[in-house]
Amino acid sequence: MSIKEPKIIRNKQEMRNWSRSMRSQGKTIGFVPTMGYLHQGHLSLITESQKHTQLTVVSIYVNPGQFAVNEDLSTYPSDLLGDIEKLKSLPNGVDVVFNPQNLYHYGEFGVMRRNFKDEKIVSCLEGEVGFGHETWVRVENLEKGMCGMSRPVFFRGVASVVAKLFNIVEPDVAVFGKKDYQQWKIIQRMVRDLDFDVKVIGSELMRDEDGLAMSSRNVHLSPQQRKQALSISRSLFEAKSAAKKGETICSELRRSVIECIEFAGGKIDYVEIVDQESLEAVEEIKNGVVVCIAAWFGKVRLIDNMEIDAS
Amino acid sequence: MSIKEPKIIRNKQEMRNWSRSMRSQGKTIGFVPTMGYLHQGHLSLITESQKHTQLTVVSIYVNPGQFAVNEDLSTYPSDLLGDIEKLKSLPNGVDVVFNPQNLYHYGEFGVMRRNFKDEKIVSCLEGEVGFGHETWVRVENLEKGMCGMSRPVFFRGVASVVAKLFNIVEPDVAVFGKKDYQQWKIIQRMVRDLDFDVKVIGSELMRDEDGLAMSSRNVHLSPQQRKQALSISRSLFEAKSAAKKGETICSELRRSVIECIEFAGGKIDYVEIVDQESLEAVEEIKNGVVVCIAAWFGKVRLIDNMEIDAS
Repeated sequence: MSIKEPKIIRNKQEMRNWSRSMRSQGKTIGFVPTMGYLHQGHLSLITESQKHTQLTVVSIYVNPGQFAVNEDLSTYPSDLLGDIEKLKSLPNGVDVVFNPQNLYHYGEFGVMRRNFKDEKIVSCLEGEVGFGHETWVRVENLEKGMCGMSRPVFFRGVASVVAKLFNIVEPDVAVFGKKDYQQWKIIQRMVRDLDFDVKVIGSELMRDEDGLAMSSRNVHLSPQQRKQALSISRSLFEAKSAAKKGETICSELRRSVIECIEFAGGKIDYVEIVDQESLEAVEEIKNGVVVCIAAWFGKVRLIDNMEIDAS
Repeated sequence: MSIKEPKIIRNKQEMRNWSRSMRSQGKTIGFVPTMGYLHQGHLSLITESQKHTQLTVVSIYVNPGQFAVNEDLSTYPSDLLGDIEKLKSLPNGVDVVFNPQNLYHYGEFGVMRRNFKDEKIVSCLEGEVGFGHETWVRVENLEKGMCGMSRPVFFRGVASVVAKLFNIVEPDVAVFGKKDYQQWKIIQRMVRDLDFDVKVIGSELMRDEDGLAMSSRNVHLSPQQRKQALSISRSLFEAKSAAKKGETICSELRRSVIECIEFAGGKIDYVEIVDQESLEAVEEIKNGVVVCIAAWFGKVRLIDNMEIDAS
């Protein structure tokens, strides 16, 4: 059985031309955007995409637009060659890896420059007034809470880069992991509100054997921190179990989760129990909710979530 | 010679299917978005589009997303049947008129509702948190000055509806009038920054015989107000003439313009002399600038502009 070598494309127009050529031959295209350093969670997104389309494009691009200057852009892990080997190992392979050098390069007029002048929170992409990138897609309500509070440029960075990628790759289907639940909801809403003709699929969160939600950032955890971080997933399973047994008061469920994580040495960023559609906090479980957590173990910020559907 | 009857399409998917069908036959598509009540200025955009593409789509849609609740959405003029007759009168006609009823209707979850709760400036589109439209495209620097000051929701409304229309119509080329200079620049920048594969063309401003810049809102001027409003174009021609004769100090040029309009009874919203690319105000004419004016005559707000290229 031959191993499929993905075509590596770095140029925007070349990527678009490939998609258009495939479409003109009647093929359907699935798309999985990633920041690389691929793990089993990413691979499951690709497998999901292949259920829906004939061809698959995976993008690998660490997007500066979604990192604030005080965040971990410079330490985000990468391993392109390792990523390509992992993609080749998939049963159906991957057709294209889109790996642009700089999505914000627009010719002589579009240099990416950093601007600390105003001391306000800026992304790693802020340029001076003039010719730098300045267009952002805002999904104004869904981006407010949870990660939107602690990472103020994150969701506008994600929505904007996904809009760019959709305009370059022109996929029929795009798959996002439900581990980044708020991100998935935001992309769904952006696609609906801006009439992108892309079917957005949320793929189930994947956990390592010990329960830790798979994430590229897990590589930064020391063995001890990893053990402590298991409190996140453990507290989520316990919350779900309690809810199934009849505990519907969210303040109680939140309290248990917070205690569990803090006892293990984690620093809570947020613990929220929110409506699955609107992401608004609820006081009592009536409709489907999702318990969302962000917590620090050392310098590593981890997120996780668990849906609790209406009984 | 037969008169071409445009196909009227109201449904998003039908519009998209038409474009894809044409493209699969190798045709190119030009697009002119309008709010209807068409005048010679609009028709010149269509003629411009036809120089570049084989087929032309004109959208007619009064977009609530770009009107604040205290603006003139309810009195914006419309005459769809008259518009269609004008389109039929063009030498090459128009292939499609896209005339949706509500671009913000997304099924049961997407009802347009008004929200005055917070008393902040909202568009006529603001819904409650939940399922109403909430995605906006922000071109953050270009939208700041001039009309962005006096009409705080305007440019995000325009950029967002144009993004939607581009995703529905999927044109190769789109034509915008330079009478709305800041709008044109914003759309150019949005297309560049979000990688829309659309060629944006700015078409020269058209004036009536008496010099008044063509605008759908001119219909609201009384005969006397129209005479007074000629001060706008007159002052622009005088400013350009003075600049050609060597006056490069912008405060002087602005002063003359302001005097001329106020003497005629106009209420100035703004007079700015800005760089053609960045739209930032300049103190002295060195590179290409554009003189931009917004002024009220009675209840009618008129805008106009004139480029002064570098000598």
